[in-house]
Order: sequence, then C-alpha cells, then structure tokens
Amino acid sequence: MPSTIDPRRQRELVRLLEKMGLEQTKLERDIPSGFDWLLVDQALVHPSFSTTYNNDQLEFIGDSVLKLAVSLFLREKYGDKKVGVLSALRAHLVSDKTLAKIARTYELKKYIVLSEAMRNDSQNVQGQEQTVLANSLEALMAAIYTITGDVKFIRRWLDPHMQNFAEALLEIPALGNYKLALLELTQRRWKRLPEYRNVATSVKNNIFFVEVWFDDRCWGQGQGKSIKAAQQEAAAIALDQMQKEIQI
Amino acid sequence: MPSTIDPRRQRELVRLLEKMGLEQTKLERDIPSGFDWLLVDQALVHPSFSTTYNNDQLEFIGDSVLKLAVSLFLREKYGDKKVGVLSALRAHLVSDKTLAKIARTYELKKYIVLSEAMRNDSQNVQGQEQTVLANSLEALMAAIYTITGDVKFIRRWLDPHMQNFAEALLEIPALGNYKLALLELTQRRWKRLPEYRNVATSVKNNIFFVEVWFDDRCWGQGQGKSIKAAQQEAAAIALDQMQKEIQI
Repeated sequence: MPSTIDPRRQRELVRLLEKMGLEQTKLERDIPSGFDWLLVDQALVHPSFSTTYNNDQLEFIGDSVLKLAVSLFLREKYGDKKVGVLSALRAHLVSDKTLAKIARTYELKKYIVLSEAMRNDSQNVQGQEQTVLANSLEALMAAIYTITGDVKFIRRWLDPHMQNFAEALLEIPALGNYKLALLELTQRRWKRLPEYRNVATSVKNNIFFVEVWFDDRCWGQGQGKSIKAAQQEAAAIALDQMQKEIQI
Repeated sequence: MPSTIDPRRQRELVRLLEKMGLEQTKLERDIPSGFDWLLVDQALVHPSFSTTYNNDQLEFIGDSVLKLAVSLFLREKYGDKKVGVLSALRAHLVSDKTLAKIARTYELKKYIVLSEAMRNDSQNVQGQEQTVLANSLEALMAAIYTITGDVKFIRRWLDPHMQNFAEALLEIPALGNYKLALLELTQRRWKRLPEYRNVATSVKNNIFFVEVWFDDRCWGQGQGKSIKAAQQEAAAIALDQMQKEIQI
C-alpha cells in the first residue's frame, strides 16, 4: 500500500482530470484538506495488478455515485417525462456499454494499471475491455466524490455525455414501455409470453385491477384508471421482481 | 401543484424530521436558501392521491441517494471485508423489506398521503404496505438530499439502522458466496445447475481461467490464483449478466 504518489504518475493523472475539465489549481483551491491524488491513482489500479492496492472498493462506491449523478441529471433535464421513461433511460445510461464509450473519449485505457495477463486478455476476450473501462470510470467517479464530497465535480463532465446518449435513446419508441419489455424478456429467455388477468374493477372509483402471470405464478399486480395503465404497472412490478430474484 | 405548505402539515413534518434527529432550527440555520418544507410534503404524497403532485420522481432519485449512503457506510464500517460481502450486504440493506422496517420506527405511515382506495388496499394486499413505506422513505431521502446537497443529513439517522441490520446479516454463512447464490437461483427458477469448466491455466503466472455455463451458453469468465477464486469471479459475472438481461 503506497503512502505517496510517484510525481510522474501524478502529472499523468493531472492531465487526465484536465481532459475532464477538472483543473488541478481549481481542485486544490476548492478542497482545503488537499486533493488526494493517491486515491485517484488507486481508482485506476485493476484488481489483477494487486490484491491489496486496487480499485474494487472504489468501484463499489462508484456504481452508486454514477446512479445518483445520472438520476439528478435526468430529473433536472427531463422532469416533464414519466418516471417509467426516466427509469428506462437510466438503465441504459449507467450500463457498461455507455460508460466504456465515455471512458474512450478520455483515452482512459492509457491510465489504467493492470496485470500483463489481463492486458492481453482484455484485448482478446470479447466484452472484457468494456468491463475494465466501465469499472475504472466508476472507480474514478468514487475517488472524485470521496475527495470532494460533491457530485457537481462529476456532473460537470458527465452531464454533456449523458445528454447526448439520452437524446439518442429518446428516439426509441418502446422506451418506458414495461409491457413490451416484459414480453421481450420472457419471449427471449423462456419462449413463452406473460398473461394479464383482469381481477377486479372498482366502479365507484373507476379503477381497474390486473395481475400478470407467468409460469403458474402471479408476478405483479397493478391498478390504474384504465386497463392499459394497470397492465403497465403490473408489468413494471413483474420486471422488478424478476430482477430481484436474479440478484439475491 | 400547491405553492405554499399548510402550517399544520408543516408542524407535523417538523415533528417527523425531529424524530429522525434533524432539528428544524439547525436545518434552517444550515441551509441559507431556506429549508423547503413543501418538497418534504411532496415526498410523502403517494401517486394514488394525485397524478400531478406526488412523490414518483423523488422516489426515482431516492433510490440512488439510498444506495450511495449505504455504500459509503459499508466502506467506512466494513472496509476490511471483501467487496463480494459488501455487495451482498448492500443488496439486503437497500431492499423494501429493510426500508419498511426503518420507516415503521418513525411511524412514517401516519405522514403519508394516499387515496382512500389505496389506504384500504395497502392494509389488505400482502406486500403493498411494505412497498408504500419503502418508496415513501426513499422519496423522503431524495427530498432531504435535494434540499441540503449533502448525504450527511441522511447518514446521520440511517447509519445506526444499517449497522443493526448489517450485524445481523453478517451471521449468515452464505453471504457474498456467488457460487452458492448462482446455484440457488438456477436451481429455484429452472431446476438445473450451472456448470464450471476449466478453460486454461497460466503456469507462469499461476492463474486459473474458468467459465460458467448454463443453458448452452457461457454466462461468465473468471480468473484467479485458485480454481475456487476463479469460479467465484465467473459466478459473480454470470449473476450480474442474468440480472441485466432481466432489467432491459
């Protein structure tokens, strides 16, 4: 575990952050306790290089820094859209694929320290490079957030990228359509379709209640002012539930 | 969309935040632009009550505020543990079940505004109340974060709860064991087991490479200093991948 940073490495990292619009003089002025360049270094050390000094814990934090930054951006910029659309946008914007593309604009690969075996591997194994780039960028976000305590130092450079990707995604018609997403999932994975059942209607309040069934199991219940709205809600819950069962 | 808050409602919300250790006088002193009690009100309005003035967008933000607060807490408190264990802890700590338990300690239900139909429903439909409580607490976190711009106003009251839950979870032997988690998932959902294949060994670097297969498809590749470590890595990637396919 190094206690100081090599001056040459620090100059490299200063250049990287400057490419991201974070100037050394301003950073060091804004952070009275001192800008911790060693933590930035650690954020770019892949676990294959060292099992004790690497970015695995920073990546763990970075995942949530990213999600918060993107959520704040989406609410500010697209607050007039339905939450279903914002969620669908977010799922795409925080993906490894998007992150790797952003990382490439800063030539992040040049700054990442990894084992030689992993370096060869990441050139040969499909998807490996994308994961390394995405994880390193997340870890870098965590380092910047941990040092500054403020997401504005992330959003300053991340927002313009996200804006570009979001605009492209908004051209996709199915975005935020949970029924379609659920259908595509069950069809692709299990070659079967979910079934919607109308279970009740409250005439007084004009509310419809539906359930969505798959594989002899009710995966979600929804309610709404129309059958379509109730089905969308049920499908959203079903998707979320399937995701949770996969996660645990 | 109300432009001011009813004084009686504000007094209620002041009491709620005081229960969480956030005193009105201190909050209003710390936030020079004024503490936005109307946003706290909105955080506790369920979408069933109003389609235009409700907490759905705040909940969308709250989800990531929660994840960040919990991640920072885990790294600070359990930084000596493996990231796999931290991830497993986090998945449990941010669940609706955990959040609803925390919400109940503040009697959050008393402060939530929802339609009468939904109020009856949440008493009768299993799991409905838990979801309402969890979502409202997330929205409340988003409101507090948006107003203060600092997670410390969340962590002050959230950390002690998370500490209690984390201590209980750490007694579970399988926590952070991806191989076991993957096995349980595929066994439960599809009644079949994943298969691990040793694909290469780098004698020079003493590194093992394995793949995990399920359903005629390679779901993850792992490498490590032992076959067991490589299998754990492959299983973690496979779990993550299955989760992503469910999500999109």
